[in-house]
Formats: sequence, structure tokens, C-alpha cells
Amino acid sequence: MDSLLYGTGLAAVAVNALTGVLDAGRKRMDLVGVTMVGCATALGGGTVRDLLLGRPVFWISDQAYLVVALATTLVVFFAVRGLRLPPRLFLVPDAVGLALFTAIGTQVALDWQAPWLVASLLGVITGVVGGVLRDMLCNEVPLIFVRGELYASAAWLGALVLVGLQALGASAVAAAWSGMAATLAARLLAMAYRITLPTYTERK
Amino acid sequence: MDSLLYGTGLAAVAVNALTGVLDAGRKRMDLVGVTMVGCATALGGGTVRDLLLGRPVFWISDQAYLVVALATTLVVFFAVRGLRLPPRLFLVPDAVGLALFTAIGTQVALDWQAPWLVASLLGVITGVVGGVLRDMLCNEVPLIFVRGELYASAAWLGALVLVGLQALGASAVAAAWSGMAATLAARLLAMAYRITLPTYTERK
Amino acid sequence: MDSLLYGTGLAAVAVNALTGVLDAGRKRMDLVGVTMVGCATALGGGTVRDLLLGRPVFWISDQAYLVVALATTLVVFFAVRGLRLPPRLFLVPDAVGLALFTAIGTQVALDWQAPWLVASLLGVITGVVGGVLRDMLCNEVPLIFVRGELYASAAWLGALVLVGLQALGASAVAAAWSGMAATLAARLLAMAYRITLPTYTERK
Repeated sequence: MDSLLYGTGLAAVAVNALTGVLDAGRKRMDLVGVTMVGCATALGGGTVRDLLLGRPVFWISDQAYLVVALATTLVVFFAVRGLRLPPRLFLVPDAVGLALFTAIGTQVALDWQAPWLVASLLGVITGVVGGVLRDMLCNEVPLIFVRGELYASAAWLGALVLVGLQALGASAVAAAWSGMAATLAARLLAMAYRITLPTYTERK
Repeated sequence: MDSLLYGTGLAAVAVNALTGVLDAGRKRMDLVGVTMVGCATALGGGTVRDLLLGRPVFWISDQAYLVVALATTLVVFFAVRGLRLPPRLFLVPDAVGLALFTAIGTQVALDWQAPWLVASLLGVITGVVGGVLRDMLCNEVPLIFVRGELYASAAWLGALVLVGLQALGASAVAAAWSGMAATLAARLLAMAYRITLPTYTERK
Repeated sequence: MDSLLYGTGLAAVAVNALTGVLDAGRKRMDLVGVTMVGCATALGGGTVRDLLLGRPVFWISDQAYLVVALATTLVVFFAVRGLRLPPRLFLVPDAVGLALFTAIGTQVALDWQAPWLVASLLGVITGVVGGVLRDMLCNEVPLIFVRGELYASAAWLGALVLVGLQALGASAVAAAWSGMAATLAARLLAMAYRITLPTYTERK
């Protein structure tokens, strides 16, 4: 389980750094700006989770995460700059990163003895904070708040699947894969069919 | 004193969640966006206080705060959506939440052996950070920075009253109530009479 | 070395508070808004560094930093309000604050046993986060992300000089001064000659 978490964590960091670079690039940032947004997107969610739990921050004591985030940022920056990319291209890796980080964050919080509701919320935080930071650094309303499509709710669904299956006696690995699949499926279906949640609208 | 702090804390969480929902609703967010803004407004100030003090974060180990914040958000969301509310309606609960959180935050910091000036500032942070997060997530200049009416200064006044009365030998309970009353009175009077502080203006 | 770090830290806090006041003043904030932006600019970078490292936050247990930040803010507020200042005036103290905080942050992280790459990044974070907070509180895209001139990269250069010289056996004091000089020189030369990094641009 630990090595699964570790490998998944490195993959999630790379995927999220990729989305940060693609998004930051559209703001015509320079190399350092893109690097910082890429790293904030990749490392932000897990950092907030660790601070809230009072755990040591995951990328401080182990340089591997930071190296992966920096390397991904640099490779993507030089590979795609000059290319004209469809603006919605980054939504699929973004959904993969959301699924991976949410499952990891929930599992880490459970391992740290957080109560189940708090653990599921910390999973959502791990999944979405990177993207929120990305959008705030670019001075946009975070997309998850206005988009109307399932996003944080897809993450929460996956976190609750993971927590629920473990409570029912499933193995940690099976619960983690099921949670990831639930988040990813909900997010992709919501994008494909534009599934939305009720919106707060005032009567005209 | 501890049970007073606990009950006041739960009430302050509910009141702040209410203001978050009312404010976020005007941005036409969906249910999850409103929930996240409501929880950030309700839990943000105390979270920053606990991180700065190196204390365990208050809502991580005790699920009650999170349950109250979520329940308030859901009830308010479904109760008021579709209603057309006066935009300044939420300013009175906002003032109550400011007074409660500031007194709690100052007391918690004093209990944690922070020096008095730091404790009063941590009280202000506990009181105002929720609203600042709310405004930043909605991509507005935080109102406390532009409004000109007393806001953080009303909080600071209450924090200094609490610290001062305790230094003079008052009981913790009396000092807490006096601090809350001072913040609330200063904020309500400032709104009613548009009392403002000097503004930094450049000569034309 | 410790007293050098302490004195430099107090000077950096004062310089950064100055830039915060000058910048916030242009937004016509009132006294409290200016004070909060000044303190956030002065204390934000070191606070994030300490939270990430799991260290006690530097200004919580020692009131001197907070007193210096508040006093600088008040003096500058009343000294310069009403004056018409050239908008780029604050760029030189900003460069000095960047150089001081980056060197301090890198050294503190090394003392706390952070790996070298992480330590250099924590130095950059200590140097730039204050200014990023300042810009986010004023609802601007943080200048370091759009400006194109060397900024975070100047800080990183200084941090790597400090780390590298210490690895080569230089004394901590000599490495710190060299790192500060490298950051300051790179930043001032970049401003004078408009040196920029490659920008991410999509082909038309």
C-alpha cells in the first residue's frame, strides 16, 4: 500500500504540474511564473492537507516530489510553447489528477486517524486546492466555483466511496482504486453530458 | 470557561457559514461552490490562528464544527434560494460572527501563552480571515480593505478590551463578554453612522 | 551568525512593510487596510516558510518582529500620505527586501536540515510570498508572474549561490552576504536593462 501511495503520488504531481503549465501559459507568464504556478498546482493540495493534519509536509523532507514537479514543468514549457492548443485540452489530465489526489489525500488522512467526514473533506481539499491556487494566482474566479459541472462533488463522491468501502471491510488497495474510478467517471460523465448541480439563483 | 468557549465557537461557526452562503449565492455558484465558500468562511479564521500558534486545527479532531458548518450551509442554501434578499442583510450576522470569533481567538491565543500584542492580533485574524477568504474566493477586493468603515479596527478594539481587562484582574468570562460587546458595538455604530478611519490619499 | 540573522530579519521586516504601505496606499485603503497589507507583506514570507518546515512561526513567540512591522507601517503611513510619489519608487526597497529575505529563508531551512533544493526554494518563497500576498490582497495578478523581468529567478540565483558556497566550504556569513549580493545585483541589473526570461507564447 505504501509504495502504491508513493508511486501514485508522484504520478499525480506530474499530471497536476502539466495542467498548471498549460493554464498558466495562456496568461503569457514567463518561465519562472509558469514554474511557480506549475509547482503550486502540483504540490498545493497535499501541502494544505499536511498542514491541517499537523503532518510533516510531504515534499519538504523528500526532494523527489519537487524534482518531478520542476522537471515536468520545464519539459512541458519547452515542448508546447509555440504550439496552439485547444483550450479545453487540459481538462482530461486535470480530471485524472483530481481522482488520484483525492484518493491519496483521503487515505493519508485516515492513516493519520482523522474522523471519516474530516478525512473525506481532506481528500477533496487535496484534490482541488492545487487548481484553486492555480486560478487564484492567475486572478480568476476558481473554475470549480462557477462552472456548474460536477468537480468538487465528483471528488467528494470518490472520497466517500473509499471511506465507505474500507468501513465495509474492503482492502485499502481495492478501496483506493474504487474511489479513484468513481471520481474519474463522475467527472468525465459530467463533462460529457454537462451534468450540473442546483445553482443558487435569486428570483427575477 | 471551556464550555462557554465551545458553545460560542459552534455558534460563531454557524453565523459565519450563514454569511458565506448569502454572499456566495450572489455569485450564482452551485451547491458545492456555496458549500465550500460557507465552510471556508466559517472555519478559515480559526484554522489560520491554529496553524500560526502550532496548535492542532480545531475542526480536524472534533467533527462537530464541520457538521455545524455543513448543516448551516445546506439549510440556508435551500431556505433562501429563490428569495430576493436585500444585499446588506448579511451585515448584522457578519458583525456578530466578527465579535464572537475575535474574542474566542484572543482567548485561545492567551491560553497558548502568546504575548499580549500577538494574542490580540491573532484574535483579529480569527475574526476577519473567514470574510477575507470569502471575498478572495469570489475574486473581490476584500471588503475590509476598501470599505473605510471600522471592521478590523472594531475587532482589534474588542481584543484589546479582553486582554486589558484580564491584565487588570477581571475574570476570563467577564473579559470575554466585554470584548465581544465592544467589537459588536463599535461595528454596529460604525455602520449606522458611517464612522471611518483616515484614508491614505495622494494629493491631487 | 544568529545575531546577524536576527538583525537582518528585523531590517527585512521593516523594508518589506514599507513597500506594502506604499503599494497599498495607491488603492486608497484606510489605516487598518494599509496596516494589514503592510504586516502581511512584512511577515508573510517567513510565516509560510516556518509553516512548511514545521518550525514555530517566527513572529508569534517574539513580539519584536510584529512591533517593527506595525511601527514602520504607522510611520510610513503618516509620513507619506498626501505626498505624490513616483509609482516605481518602491522597487528599490522591494529589491533589498527580496535579497535579505531570500538569504535568511535559505539559511533557516538549511539549519532545519532541509535538503538543498528544498532549502533554496524555501528561500525563494520567503523572499517573494510577502509581495505575492500584497498583490493578491489588492486583487492584482502578482507582479512577479507577469512582469517578465527577473524577480523570483533573481532570488533563486542568490539562494543557489548561498547553498553552493556553503557546500564548497565557505563560512555561513560569507555565503549569506554573497547570496544577498547576487540577488540584489541580478534584480537591479534586470530592472536597469530590462533583462527578461523566455515567455510562453502561443503561435499566432
